[in-house]
Amino acid sequence: MSEARPRIRILRGRDIAIGPGKADLLQAIDATGSISSAARQMDMSYRRAWLLVDTMNQCFVTPLVDTAVGGSGGGGARLTPLGLEVLQRYRAMETNAAAAIADDAARLNACLKPLED
Amino acid sequence: MSEARPRIRILRGRDIAIGPGKADLLQAIDATGSISSAARQMDMSYRRAWLLVDTMNQCFVTPLVDTAVGGSGGGGARLTPLGLEVLQRYRAMETNAAAAIADDAARLNACLKPLED
Repeated sequence: MSEARPRIRILRGRDIAIGPGKADLLQAIDATGSISSAARQMDMSYRRAWLLVDTMNQCFVTPLVDTAVGGSGGGGARLTPLGLEVLQRYRAMETNAAAAIADDAARLNACLKPLED
Repeated sequence: MSEARPRIRILRGRDIAIGPGKADLLQAIDATGSISSAARQMDMSYRRAWLLVDTMNQCFVTPLVDTAVGGSGGGGARLTPLGLEVLQRYRAMETNAAAAIADDAARLNACLKPLED
């Protein structure tokens, strides 16, 4: 129905170094072990997923995603230690921000007109 | 340079009942006493400002902006008590969310590649 959405972005200049979409992509790469599988899971083109990974890798001092992982036909990808840390901290920020606004958000949600069916 | 941006949105169905832009607009209406002055201050068309106000007024149980304020030629607008409360709570949520993520955001910012001049 209604919800409060704290969307957190860490910017580097005009680039979004990490935000909701990139965090989800990191998580999908961690889960699937490849950019193409992660893209498929997120219903996103491989090209778009690759560009998002490239932006993240360029924004941070060291890459978040290691794309040089072997596997039989190559093409694998995995999070680096920094990638895992960024993902973990990003999720912590989301959780902590949501907790910090919960009371005010509940009050505002209670002031919304009910949705019709 | 770099910054963490917690952007908070309260949704009603597909509508954003209140978010960063609408909060700024409420604040500008509160400061200027009219939608047209607020729109000018925000470098936004009157039509767009009016539509944002209309969405807010439709989303909440009672309007946030009272557009029936007189004045010599009419055209004034002011926040209702609920409008003032929504604006105040929204700013509190922003402040509280920013505080809740400050440590993780500082660590992530420290991991960003420096911007070139």
